[in-house]
Amino acid sequence: MNGPNLDRLGTREREIYGAESLGDVESRLRELAGDLGVDLVFFQSNSEGDLVDAIWDAADGCDGIVINPAAYTHYSIAVRDALSGAGLPTVEVHISNVHDREEFRSRSVVAPACTGGIWGLGTAGYDLALRALVQMLA
Amino acid sequence: MNGPNLDRLGTREREIYGAESLGDVESRLRELAGDLGVDLVFFQSNSEGDLVDAIWDAADGCDGIVINPAAYTHYSIAVRDALSGAGLPTVEVHISNVHDREEFRSRSVVAPACTGGIWGLGTAGYDLALRALVQMLA
Amino acid sequence: MNGPNLDRLGTREREIYGAESLGDVESRLRELAGDLGVDLVFFQSNSEGDLVDAIWDAADGCDGIVINPAAYTHYSIAVRDALSGAGLPTVEVHISNVHDREEFRSRSVVAPACTGGIWGLGTAGYDLALRALVQMLA
Amino acid sequence: MNGPNLDRLGTREREIYGAESLGDVESRLRELAGDLGVDLVFFQSNSEGDLVDAIWDAADGCDGIVINPAAYTHYSIAVRDALSGAGLPTVEVHISNVHDREEFRSRSVVAPACTGGIWGLGTAGYDLALRALVQMLA
Amino acid sequence: MNGPNLDRLGTREREIYGAESLGDVESRLRELAGDLGVDLVFFQSNSEGDLVDAIWDAADGCDGIVINPAAYTHYSIAVRDALSGAGLPTVEVHISNVHDREEFRSRSVVAPACTGGIWGLGTAGYDLALRALVQMLA
Amino acid sequence: MNGPNLDRLGTREREIYGAESLGDVESRLRELAGDLGVDLVFFQSNSEGDLVDAIWDAADGCDGIVINPAAYTHYSIAVRDALSGAGLPTVEVHISNVHDREEFRSRSVVAPACTGGIWGLGTAGYDLALRALVQMLA
Amino acid sequence: MNGPNLDRLGTREREIYGAESLGDVESRLRELAGDLGVDLVFFQSNSEGDLVDAIWDAADGCDGIVINPAAYTHYSIAVRDALSGAGLPTVEVHISNVHDREEFRSRSVVAPACTGGIWGLGTAGYDLALRALVQMLA
Amino acid sequence: MNGPNLDRLGTREREIYGAESLGDVESRLRELAGDLGVDLVFFQSNSEGDLVDAIWDAADGCDGIVINPAAYTHYSIAVRDALSGAGLPTVEVHISNVHDREEFRSRSVVAPACTGGIWGLGTAGYDLALRALVQMLA
Amino acid sequence: MNGPNLDRLGTREREIYGAESLGDVESRLRELAGDLGVDLVFFQSNSEGDLVDAIWDAADGCDGIVINPAAYTHYSIAVRDALSGAGLPTVEVHISNVHDREEFRSRSVVAPACTGGIWGLGTAGYDLALRALVQMLA
Amino acid sequence: MNGPNLDRLGTREREIYGAESLGDVESRLRELAGDLGVDLVFFQSNSEGDLVDAIWDAADGCDGIVINPAAYTHYSIAVRDALSGAGLPTVEVHISNVHDREEFRSRSVVAPACTGGIWGLGTAGYDLALRALVQMLA
Amino acid sequence: MNGPNLDRLGTREREIYGAESLGDVESRLRELAGDLGVDLVFFQSNSEGDLVDAIWDAADGCDGIVINPAAYTHYSIAVRDALSGAGLPTVEVHISNVHDREEFRSRSVVAPACTGGIWGLGTAGYDLALRALVQMLA
Amino acid sequence: MNGPNLDRLGTREREIYGAESLGDVESRLRELAGDLGVDLVFFQSNSEGDLVDAIWDAADGCDGIVINPAAYTHYSIAVRDALSGAGLPTVEVHISNVHDREEFRSRSVVAPACTGGIWGLGTAGYDLALRALVQMLA
Repeated sequence: MNGPNLDRLGTREREIYGAESLGDVESRLRELAGDLGVDLVFFQSNSEGDLVDAIWDAADGCDGIVINPAAYTHYSIAVRDALSGAGLPTVEVHISNVHDREEFRSRSVVAPACTGGIWGLGTAGYDLALRALVQMLA
Repeated sequence: MNGPNLDRLGTREREIYGAESLGDVESRLRELAGDLGVDLVFFQSNSEGDLVDAIWDAADGCDGIVINPAAYTHYSIAVRDALSGAGLPTVEVHISNVHDREEFRSRSVVAPACTGGIWGLGTAGYDLALRALVQMLA
Repeated sequence: MNGPNLDRLGTREREIYGAESLGDVESRLRELAGDLGVDLVFFQSNSEGDLVDAIWDAADGCDGIVINPAAYTHYSIAVRDALSGAGLPTVEVHISNVHDREEFRSRSVVAPACTGGIWGLGTAGYDLALRALVQMLA
Repeated sequence: MNGPNLDRLGTREREIYGAESLGDVESRLRELAGDLGVDLVFFQSNSEGDLVDAIWDAADGCDGIVINPAAYTHYSIAVRDALSGAGLPTVEVHISNVHDREEFRSRSVVAPACTGGIWGLGTAGYDLALRALVQMLA
Repeated sequence: MNGPNLDRLGTREREIYGAESLGDVESRLRELAGDLGVDLVFFQSNSEGDLVDAIWDAADGCDGIVINPAAYTHYSIAVRDALSGAGLPTVEVHISNVHDREEFRSRSVVAPACTGGIWGLGTAGYDLALRALVQMLA
Repeated sequence: MNGPNLDRLGTREREIYGAESLGDVESRLRELAGDLGVDLVFFQSNSEGDLVDAIWDAADGCDGIVINPAAYTHYSIAVRDALSGAGLPTVEVHISNVHDREEFRSRSVVAPACTGGIWGLGTAGYDLALRALVQMLA
Repeated sequence: MNGPNLDRLGTREREIYGAESLGDVESRLRELAGDLGVDLVFFQSNSEGDLVDAIWDAADGCDGIVINPAAYTHYSIAVRDALSGAGLPTVEVHISNVHDREEFRSRSVVAPACTGGIWGLGTAGYDLALRALVQMLA
Repeated sequence: MNGPNLDRLGTREREIYGAESLGDVESRLRELAGDLGVDLVFFQSNSEGDLVDAIWDAADGCDGIVINPAAYTHYSIAVRDALSGAGLPTVEVHISNVHDREEFRSRSVVAPACTGGIWGLGTAGYDLALRALVQMLA
Repeated sequence: MNGPNLDRLGTREREIYGAESLGDVESRLRELAGDLGVDLVFFQSNSEGDLVDAIWDAADGCDGIVINPAAYTHYSIAVRDALSGAGLPTVEVHISNVHDREEFRSRSVVAPACTGGIWGLGTAGYDLALRALVQMLA
Repeated sequence: MNGPNLDRLGTREREIYGAESLGDVESRLRELAGDLGVDLVFFQSNSEGDLVDAIWDAADGCDGIVINPAAYTHYSIAVRDALSGAGLPTVEVHISNVHDREEFRSRSVVAPACTGGIWGLGTAGYDLALRALVQMLA
Repeated sequence: MNGPNLDRLGTREREIYGAESLGDVESRLRELAGDLGVDLVFFQSNSEGDLVDAIWDAADGCDGIVINPAAYTHYSIAVRDALSGAGLPTVEVHISNVHDREEFRSRSVVAPACTGGIWGLGTAGYDLALRALVQMLA
Repeated sequence: MNGPNLDRLGTREREIYGAESLGDVESRLRELAGDLGVDLVFFQSNSEGDLVDAIWDAADGCDGIVINPAAYTHYSIAVRDALSGAGLPTVEVHISNVHDREEFRSRSVVAPACTGGIWGLGTAGYDLALRALVQMLA
């Protein structure tokens, strides 16, 4: 599950987020999901409401969530409450080192509602998160 | 008018929000509205923008608003500005005791744009709010 | 139970608190209590210590508390501790919109020790609070 | 009107408050009141509630208030609300330089409800305050 | 590009925002755009996600952005990140004097991602912004 | 000397304050005082003003003070000023671990005016305080 | 000694500062000085540096200072250090109630270097200050 | 009207402020003033007091003010009070994006006393401000 | 267990900490331990890591801890975590009145992991702590 | 590299950190290192200085660091500076969800000097970190 | 270059600043300058604007600056901007230990625009600064 | 006396700290000490406890201290207390401009316990400090 502006990953600000597109990430994750024997629902939206909807859909049909809430990380109590309510094992992923940028990026209002998180390891963070989730659910 | 995650009321985190669903609440309020001789438009959305739209629709067609902005209570200046602009008598409702949970839940950016509010009295707060609104408009 | 300066309700600063006196409120509430089939003990004091005493008296002889701690709302940990210790269902009432006045009025140190609260609905808030309490205890 | 601990003026901590007793101050002020042709009601209490009562009594029978709320200056919203409600011309007096002591003493929650104030001029501040009040009411 | 509640410009709270409607502003700007020999895409939405989408659309098809993020100015890191990512010359416009209203309105989380801004000059701010943008791009 | 709500010690919230009543504590302390060869004046009030009065009475007739200001610990500058003015050796006692509860309980405005303090050791803290005081005065 | 913008006293913002000009105040104070048998040097400047110079001049030739530092009250550590260094009895005067206006006006960086102060009593504050100073120096 | 260090515009730190000198700006503005049919008084000083003087001179002889208070923007309450007192339509100009530099530059104590402002648009901000002022006064 | 700089107790800054050396304290405590029939391990180190080690050693071989973490009191989360992990009854001792010195000394990050504490009673605090611990473990 | 108190992993507070010992973790990581074809130096210390030494040793002999600074995460600028100076790819690991515990645990002063981090995924976080590091260095 | 109140050095508050006059310091520095073979321009003003002017003059004719901005250290962004713009090697000097006085004296807004600084070493700090500057420029 | 990470001076992050090694600095200082006719004890440790020990050793055998506490500058109250207890003339040295880096580096908890300090003048700061100390002790 990916938050706002991630649909443009790899096209701009490559010095921060790298050159890979979100499509590339999705392909690689689908492959990894296959290897791990699990199904993957991939989702991106710039809309906070749509992310909340998607989290509840996941609560109905999935066993865990890998989420990069992007900008919403820092203020969306709506996303936090949805994750809390859904009650699934959840891994929060950030591509860049959010602790070495603007002060406000080091604060996540979403984190207390997640199981754990991975930051600063590039898009490889998604792979690690998926791997962690599958192991956790095994 | 109900904010994010309230569509799942009664299905999860029942220890905080109780076992009643939003549908149950709606039914009871419709009945009460009937008793009080007023019409009721019921609305829920997880999207901040949709709530803003709905407030302006109410400004055009309603005499007052009962709103539970849920998570948006704590940061949606957009909702606040819409309520302020609409200028209707408005009652803010919270089901749980927002003052006895995380620190950030005790702050409402929406409250200054409301007439009054009710918190911590469960879903009965909606009934009281409707009753107060009707009396206020009488 | 009413805190400091409420004995002068209706005589001054009517633009904020309305023209009704505390005696008027008491009469109306006694009538409502009668309708609801419950007994009502009415109390007002400007003294923090007397309010603490009264809360403990209520703990001994009443089933619930409706309290408007007025100015003490914002700093009286003594009142908070008394309410906490008493352990009765309690509804905190404020006549005016405390969230649309001075910053310090939007903070209640008493709220975490209450069941719920009602603000900004004028003296009608007392009626709603009594009604809520009776329903809660039913 | 004098707040907590001022009844012991002149007996202890003389390096801060001087050697004059509150009785000495009262005598001198009575004399000055006589000279100015006004009546003076003198009052001291360690109890916040009693001060609130006394302010309302003044609202009923006096034309102005000279008040040294002492410790209550820094947190008694009850005293502030009483002064605000009473609506009389009021002068806040402090004997010592409250801005050159502990940080918390430089903040007065009462000041916004007063007309003006005098600090750091010793007990002469009471005389000046009375003089100012009489001139204001002339 | 206009944020939440601006679709109701001129219909309410005219003492703050004036009597002109957003349609009036659009007409005048289209005329000015014609005079300056540039094309103008006009957009308004109450939804944060739609604004993010629109910024990225602009990144693909426009040379610069004039944006009034309204309430989102104060918390939408999503809008900020979109503007940052889009990388276009951008002018932030506010109709009212945001520095002479509530404290929170004087803080813009969006400003660091803009080239410059104009506030408090009424709807004329849009004209000036367009003019500045065209000159900048010349 | 005991502050607000301590008269109900042992009857409620026993998981925090234990099952002993204030009467039990008094008896035990009187016995200890006898053993140590000192006289003991025991006092409790819910009123801030009465505590201030009692401190000044102690200043006149006692050699030291053991005080548990309870809720007033956190905001009563009046109590602090009284202790400061009285100038007696004073030990501040708290029954529970005030540093492991709500944030505001870890701050004492009274402590700078005391000689020392004891917290979290249950009602045994009173015994230790008396013992310390007697040793100090020996 | 008068700080910035006081040369225009009485010509603008009369609802805050009254209709008297600084010349009127000077005349009245000169008369009072005559009555009290003291000499008066009157000074006004909009420049912080000139005020510092004037304070040192006073240190050389005067026995006390009455100062209204106006805007500099809130940030001029230079004025504070000059007053501190000069070491004369000093009374800080404010015409308006600085505690009932913008938050920043309730903080004085100059006050700790003064003997005392008078605020909110209009231009009569200057008279009282002069009177207090003369009495102090007697 | 230009504040401290702007006399050296264009000679240093060109990467922030550009290569144009203040003389260049003045020439261009005089030309624009001519086109708009208005008179222009141009002023620069490094002294806060001189700026205050100049604002009051403008109050006597001008119809509006364009001001870049430079460093004084962030702390000169003296300049703010002068602008407030003068009561002229005023536009605050900043050449650079003050919201994308040191934190303290994003706060203006002067802005609440201005009509509006323009930042980050280079020296073109002066032209836009003059244009806005003339239109406002038309 | 004693933290940094306590090995020099009694040799310097005697006006704060008294003239007794840590050896004197140890002797007296050993004697008291004997009287109380318990064994005492005495430890002092200037190294945070050594204190952590010592706490874990105590967890293995002791029934309770009396600790004066000195400077580490105010920032050593490592010591706090060790005490928390060890899970023994623990009494935190401070010789001086930490609430009447620099602001930072009034905050203890260690206290929430202790059972209780004693401050400001000189080295007698150690005796009281040992006595309390023994009674607690009886 | 492991910080203070981690040598006791699995023996206490298992509800937070799990039942695995640090030895168990080391064995598993050595096995994984073997699988990945890399050498592993394992280190734990309760001493901040020893951790700093170990980081510099790693700078001399290793290609990357996996570090769980435990308590030092929240205040050790010394560890941060060492990591910064060493300049190796570094992954910060936390076993528990540091964002859902005490407020202070959500702040890491070390993170800006790391490449990335993993939190809340139990001891599996070490495996993921090692895996990420090896992939990064490939 | 010396800021406000330093012209009175040695005449008052000698317990903080010593008995040497600024003239004494100037003589000694001129002698040292001669020994080091450099020219020295000595300057003092109580006016912020004059200091800004003097810094720019130095930018035109000197190779480095030794500056004691005195009170302006703590708020003069104008001085900071001038130093920044001038771009000369600059040493900030404070005679007293600014970190062991009022809290606000420990913050310098000027320091980020200087090369380095010296505090608390008395007037010898000027000599060291000159020496450092000459060595830096060699 | 040198704090953590300074043993690696000159080997890394040369753009901040320069290319000189700590050995180079020691040699130069030994030479200077010889010229000044004083003995020099040189010390470096990454361990806070060792620094505390070394300060007390200095208290026993030295006449003054030159200390660069590096990272410990910002939080080691243990080092501060040791310096305070030792009571020797002490000069705090920082090689880089600590006021122009991360915010936290501009705060020194150690400074109030030092006589004075030197920052930003490179390793020459050590020479100046030694020189200042010798002059002070002459």
